[in-house]
Amino acid sequence: MKTGINIQKPKGKLGILTPGIGAVSTTFMAGVIATRKGLGQPIGSISQMGNIRLGKRTENREPKVKDFIPLASLEDLVFGGWDIFTDNAYEAAMNAGVLEKDLLNEIKDELSTIKPMPAVFDHNYVKNLHGDYVKKADTKMDLANAVMADIKRFKTENSCSRMLMIWTASTEVYVETSTVHKTIENFEKGLLNNDPGISPSMIYAYAALKSGIPYINGAPNLTNDVPAIIELANQLNIPIAGKDFKTGQTLMKTILGPGLKARLLGIDGWFSTNILGNRDGEVLDDAGSFKTKEVSKLSVLDSVLEPEKYPELYKNMYHKVRINYYPPKGDDKESWDNIDIFGWLGYKMQIKVNFLCKDSILAAPVVLDLALFMDLAQRAEMKGIQEWLSFYFKSPQTKEGLQPIHDIFLQKVKFENTLRHLMGEPLINYLGLDYYEDD
Amino acid sequence: MKTGINIQKPKGKLGILTPGIGAVSTTFMAGVIATRKGLGQPIGSISQMGNIRLGKRTENREPKVKDFIPLASLEDLVFGGWDIFTDNAYEAAMNAGVLEKDLLNEIKDELSTIKPMPAVFDHNYVKNLHGDYVKKADTKMDLANAVMADIKRFKTENSCSRMLMIWTASTEVYVETSTVHKTIENFEKGLLNNDPGISPSMIYAYAALKSGIPYINGAPNLTNDVPAIIELANQLNIPIAGKDFKTGQTLMKTILGPGLKARLLGIDGWFSTNILGNRDGEVLDDAGSFKTKEVSKLSVLDSVLEPEKYPELYKNMYHKVRINYYPPKGDDKESWDNIDIFGWLGYKMQIKVNFLCKDSILAAPVVLDLALFMDLAQRAEMKGIQEWLSFYFKSPQTKEGLQPIHDIFLQKVKFENTLRHLMGEPLINYLGLDYYEDD
Amino acid sequence: MKTGINIQKPKGKLGILTPGIGAVSTTFMAGVIATRKGLGQPIGSISQMGNIRLGKRTENREPKVKDFIPLASLEDLVFGGWDIFTDNAYEAAMNAGVLEKDLLNEIKDELSTIKPMPAVFDHNYVKNLHGDYVKKADTKMDLANAVMADIKRFKTENSCSRMLMIWTASTEVYVETSTVHKTIENFEKGLLNNDPGISPSMIYAYAALKSGIPYINGAPNLTNDVPAIIELANQLNIPIAGKDFKTGQTLMKTILGPGLKARLLGIDGWFSTNILGNRDGEVLDDAGSFKTKEVSKLSVLDSVLEPEKYPELYKNMYHKVRINYYPPKGDDKESWDNIDIFGWLGYKMQIKVNFLCKDSILAAPVVLDLALFMDLAQRAEMKGIQEWLSFYFKSPQTKEGLQPIHDIFLQKVKFENTLRHLMGEPLINYLGLDYYEDD
Amino acid sequence: MKTGINIQKPKGKLGILTPGIGAVSTTFMAGVIATRKGLGQPIGSISQMGNIRLGKRTENREPKVKDFIPLASLEDLVFGGWDIFTDNAYEAAMNAGVLEKDLLNEIKDELSTIKPMPAVFDHNYVKNLHGDYVKKADTKMDLANAVMADIKRFKTENSCSRMLMIWTASTEVYVETSTVHKTIENFEKGLLNNDPGISPSMIYAYAALKSGIPYINGAPNLTNDVPAIIELANQLNIPIAGKDFKTGQTLMKTILGPGLKARLLGIDGWFSTNILGNRDGEVLDDAGSFKTKEVSKLSVLDSVLEPEKYPELYKNMYHKVRINYYPPKGDDKESWDNIDIFGWLGYKMQIKVNFLCKDSILAAPVVLDLALFMDLAQRAEMKGIQEWLSFYFKSPQTKEGLQPIHDIFLQKVKFENTLRHLMGEPLINYLGLDYYEDD
Repeated sequence: MKTGINIQKPKGKLGILTPGIGAVSTTFMAGVIATRKGLGQPIGSISQMGNIRLGKRTENREPKVKDFIPLASLEDLVFGGWDIFTDNAYEAAMNAGVLEKDLLNEIKDELSTIKPMPAVFDHNYVKNLHGDYVKKADTKMDLANAVMADIKRFKTENSCSRMLMIWTASTEVYVETSTVHKTIENFEKGLLNNDPGISPSMIYAYAALKSGIPYINGAPNLTNDVPAIIELANQLNIPIAGKDFKTGQTLMKTILGPGLKARLLGIDGWFSTNILGNRDGEVLDDAGSFKTKEVSKLSVLDSVLEPEKYPELYKNMYHKVRINYYPPKGDDKESWDNIDIFGWLGYKMQIKVNFLCKDSILAAPVVLDLALFMDLAQRAEMKGIQEWLSFYFKSPQTKEGLQPIHDIFLQKVKFENTLRHLMGEPLINYLGLDYYEDD
Repeated sequence: MKTGINIQKPKGKLGILTPGIGAVSTTFMAGVIATRKGLGQPIGSISQMGNIRLGKRTENREPKVKDFIPLASLEDLVFGGWDIFTDNAYEAAMNAGVLEKDLLNEIKDELSTIKPMPAVFDHNYVKNLHGDYVKKADTKMDLANAVMADIKRFKTENSCSRMLMIWTASTEVYVETSTVHKTIENFEKGLLNNDPGISPSMIYAYAALKSGIPYINGAPNLTNDVPAIIELANQLNIPIAGKDFKTGQTLMKTILGPGLKARLLGIDGWFSTNILGNRDGEVLDDAGSFKTKEVSKLSVLDSVLEPEKYPELYKNMYHKVRINYYPPKGDDKESWDNIDIFGWLGYKMQIKVNFLCKDSILAAPVVLDLALFMDLAQRAEMKGIQEWLSFYFKSPQTKEGLQPIHDIFLQKVKFENTLRHLMGEPLINYLGLDYYEDD
Repeated sequence: MKTGINIQKPKGKLGILTPGIGAVSTTFMAGVIATRKGLGQPIGSISQMGNIRLGKRTENREPKVKDFIPLASLEDLVFGGWDIFTDNAYEAAMNAGVLEKDLLNEIKDELSTIKPMPAVFDHNYVKNLHGDYVKKADTKMDLANAVMADIKRFKTENSCSRMLMIWTASTEVYVETSTVHKTIENFEKGLLNNDPGISPSMIYAYAALKSGIPYINGAPNLTNDVPAIIELANQLNIPIAGKDFKTGQTLMKTILGPGLKARLLGIDGWFSTNILGNRDGEVLDDAGSFKTKEVSKLSVLDSVLEPEKYPELYKNMYHKVRINYYPPKGDDKESWDNIDIFGWLGYKMQIKVNFLCKDSILAAPVVLDLALFMDLAQRAEMKGIQEWLSFYFKSPQTKEGLQPIHDIFLQKVKFENTLRHLMGEPLINYLGLDYYEDD
Repeated sequence: MKTGINIQKPKGKLGILTPGIGAVSTTFMAGVIATRKGLGQPIGSISQMGNIRLGKRTENREPKVKDFIPLASLEDLVFGGWDIFTDNAYEAAMNAGVLEKDLLNEIKDELSTIKPMPAVFDHNYVKNLHGDYVKKADTKMDLANAVMADIKRFKTENSCSRMLMIWTASTEVYVETSTVHKTIENFEKGLLNNDPGISPSMIYAYAALKSGIPYINGAPNLTNDVPAIIELANQLNIPIAGKDFKTGQTLMKTILGPGLKARLLGIDGWFSTNILGNRDGEVLDDAGSFKTKEVSKLSVLDSVLEPEKYPELYKNMYHKVRINYYPPKGDDKESWDNIDIFGWLGYKMQIKVNFLCKDSILAAPVVLDLALFMDLAQRAEMKGIQEWLSFYFKSPQTKEGLQPIHDIFLQKVKFENTLRHLMGEPLINYLGLDYYEDD
């Protein structure tokens, strides 16, 4: 790992490839293009709009993050990707219905040139989608090779100096780690043997790492949580990160959960329901895909609340999560949470939260930040799991044996102190007793 | 300031005196007594139920706070106070209607012995209350002396080794700092001259400090925010803390506000309404008292969001707070918040939060923790403003010129690192890159 | 049908038998007993607390319903029933946790004497319940005969002059009308042959009618909707009514639905979720039982909104109902509805309703009213389907070929005009132009 | 009063004049124009989209209202009005921000020709508005004459056969009926003497009636509730109607209130808060204007619930209404209601309703229907107060001594039976026992 002036400068173009050219990725791409043209602001992006405090409170040093640490410029980003439909990014964005048509028409030229490459797809892994713009090959290894060829071609055609891949496609059916995922050797054999335990997202991740570029997992898929992929990333000195972009209801949970815990308020039950009407909702209407999402969503509270350490407060918590496909909402995603809490002497109280959110609007800045910070990680020679980016994920990946931190506020302290550390600034621990020393 | 083994041990009884024997203080007292008798748990109290992580995550050291740092035992607490009504703590608790009658009857004996001393009261400062169990004297200095005599007598009669005072009475009418508050000298002249700028709560605070005991301000009153009182505390080496217990809607705001800020989501408006039916609601129905509360409640978001640093996101935020007296709720206090936010490219979303809370239930553990940690502060020879206890206050008191931290999560890091510092443990900054070093 | 003074007077005791001695029936029984003893008021009961306007608005005639029409007195009610558990009504009420223990203890003597008779039960019809206090017999006809013997014995032992039966037990698995239900003959053959299409509730209904007593269906079970049972009721001159007590979320729907329709506001979607923690919730966690409930709940809006008459407004409405077992709520049943509406030129608006309700508290007065009005119907010689009692049901039973009225307000006009008609009072049509004639 | 074929046919143009060319009136005008051009549907309008059931349910006769009774055609409507700003209807609609700019631009030509006449305005009656496009004259009688001249000119210039006036301007300061309002004579003297008790809206109403055209009061102003105006309407055989369009939260109240009452559920308290950001909100931020609105809003529940008849249920209800100016909402008007109810034996439940509504969208079809039905009333020679149009008003005007009906469902029965009566169809009373007679 390198720090300070030794971090390689972000020279040249950065290619960002997304499996999935849908609501999330087109909102991200359109937003970057609109920002470049002065048509909008990349709100929600820490890399673009955030400040970072340095030193003592009394020093008043608080530069923009992007002025503090060397990140790729929005001007240098180039976009590409794969999909099972042939729509270009303009058409896909119009279909998604997230952004207003007027805005999309102003950047139609730029978006229209972003055309998907045919996808690696397996109907067994996503039951409710049907598209036929897919790669065909005898073995999964052949599919991986085809993706690597795509990456190489894209890099050349777009004169990129660096690239990375970020999954913005659908949630796959729930699977657990098995033998084929245990070692690189097993995994590669599985690719050759068409092992059913290897999902499309794993093929993409493998292809990315073998091409020397970082892989980011925006869905709750298993993908880079298996030993084979982690080992590969460490071996090849490439950063990986995941999983499942933290947006909507889970974002709320990692805000409210730590808040209640900070005050040691007990929780009897937490009921969460979601209604959403886009393709994501349709996919999650399938029980298998929902299972994957549910596991990701349920684990959050346990890690935040630590029932094993606070059994009187959280051990008997009943946690239920429901996702409902409800077309009238379109890309809007609405959640309603009922939280039954108890305080002093066990007295009961209730909290209800209704979040009228827009999923892709919340996800787009996360995609941008992760792309830029992962590119930074690679230039800083940080390999393997990037726990400091936990801030952006529902199920943060950590080293085996290490309890993940779900508390968004501790995640943020970790994230900022990592940036300070990278740039040789003193870390902040918020003690601050010295301000009062000479009183 | 002393640390580690040099901190004086909490030997003997700790007397806790509350101006105001009402819903909050009786819920606190009843809860401590019930806990001592095994009739309930002091949920929400970090001093009693909290753990604190020490060292690296992999060390698995996480003792109870009360096993880590020397705090007074619940067995050693003795309660007293003042009120404008003669009801003893049992009667006052029955009237307040917070706790169930069955529970109160089980501890009737203990509560009945807690009888108020006559209060210092000024009708100009609390317009909607009418009680006549009040001290009469020619000057405010005489009133202060009477309170000091009360303290002394209580200490002797109850064989206390240490004492402190914590304001749990009503919100006073809004006043601003003026000449009489600027120096100790002016203030003492004002006491002699019956200066109208000196409120009852200031008389209590003065009497506490002159008696050598800490003063904690649980209401949004000006009290210990004025230079004269701060100077006195520093001169006499006594800790002070305030102000306004962080409960209910503001607790929610210091959870949600930092959450939205962490993700740099913009805010167009935040509308907060409250309905409450107890004496607190009645007092706040007076415009003067409401003003004091409103100023305290409004300032929270500004400090959390820092609009001067993020003008695109927070400068035009419209923030409105309403408090409505609504008798059907009794001691229940219900809030509804509507938050209009915006994200990526300015797209709008909404959050609605309905909190069905119980004010005194949320306040009681705060009273207990503040009492125990302020006693610790005094034994550790920490004088003046205790910023590390910001965690418990709506409007945390800080040194002049120092921006207060309202973010409850940073407040918690500060609080925990202060405890670690006091006990000579390494501070935690959540960097954690070393876990990955040997990968 | 008889009217006015020809209606038979309600002399002697009225025996009310409930299949199911659980939350609903014990809350009903306890409430009647408590009311008799002056310990509470039968709030929600139109028979006990309602007024009825008679004549012109200017006449100011508005007697209590019970003073207007001859109803059985609360003093004359006697309670009995069947259950699969042996708990008496006191024990069952304590378990249900609806009413406070203090109240139940004050009427413990009366409740304890109400002991269940062993139930007719079939595990295939209610999958999530397990009890063994059940009748055993070779054929379903034998079971029906056993119930008839129970009825006869109860009548004699309690010296009842009249009786009726009201289903307050669980929701059975979804079934549709088949051949066995088509005629009385087929049905009786089915009883002898143990036809699987005959559910326990049908056996109870058959036994009631053959014993000459009215049957009321409080659940969404098929029971008395089949031709065989309707034919039997008409043949034997006995009133029947159903189905599914209108409480909670559906009550809300039949209030809000007609309200939106009255103003011709269009509806894009209506999403309803429920969380409930009692035995009812457990039963409905079974897909089969939920199906029965779902069909009952979904049909409501269609009948209210008449999409075939207002296709521009309601034809594309997406309606989704979810029921979630969530133990922390206990007998509380909470619903959250999101309604997406549109108005002038198609502009969209939203309504969110959160109902924190208590199911048995809402159901108990419905049970009481239905018992008293069905007894009235029998004394007035009104046989078969009692559409005028639609007011109390989620899925009102009507004559074949007649569209049911779901609008609770039209149901109420129908109900009141029926009472007026029975007593020979002029019907009210709310025209009222005559008030202005002499202006 | 005439009925059936004797009602005068709606030949020629109908001129609709609105004091106030703002959000409500321009949304109404734009919607009519858009509907004429096939650009939208007049959703919410009973006159345009409603059906009416005739005869028995089994007859299946349910024509469109507009096919059943002779109403003016949308093609024949002509619009005009007065305002204190010179913006034409296109400019005013663009400023109001209710309708999308794209739509407004498609009908820019038609809207632009609608130019306000200078208004009668008195700053004492609307404190928060400041405009200078106002009529100046020595006496209020002169102002009335100027309005009459405007009406006459408009009629001629637009070749109208009939006209009417409908108030869509701001809420005036609260005033009560005094001597000047008691008789026509006093009132006319007051106009000559510039009596301060005569508000601008009264001047408009007087001018309308003296010009022989109906007056409709869409705000909670006193206007046509005073004896002088009612007497004038009766004397001159002109219909009047009011007051305060029923939209938003009050619409909800007249839906939910009757629903809870139908089931005799008791109410402890009803807390209503509103947030709105348009000019209406700004005006209501003035205490005087709010008082007028508050009186109108508070009275609704009392009339619906009849606490004098149901003292156990409604006598102690605590009802509080708050309106808050909150700019981020723009023309959106959002309400939150907390309703504390109780049922069987006094057990408590709660209902929370959050209505995200658009005020002008809800008001526009009300304006259209009232215009068309008032024109019908005049052609049918129905003079004075039109109670049958109560359905559309928050505070329905009734004959003195007659309790108003607030229940929206009874209002609807009254409305429909009046239409049936006018056309000689049998009235419907929902008894329907005859359907079952031959069973």
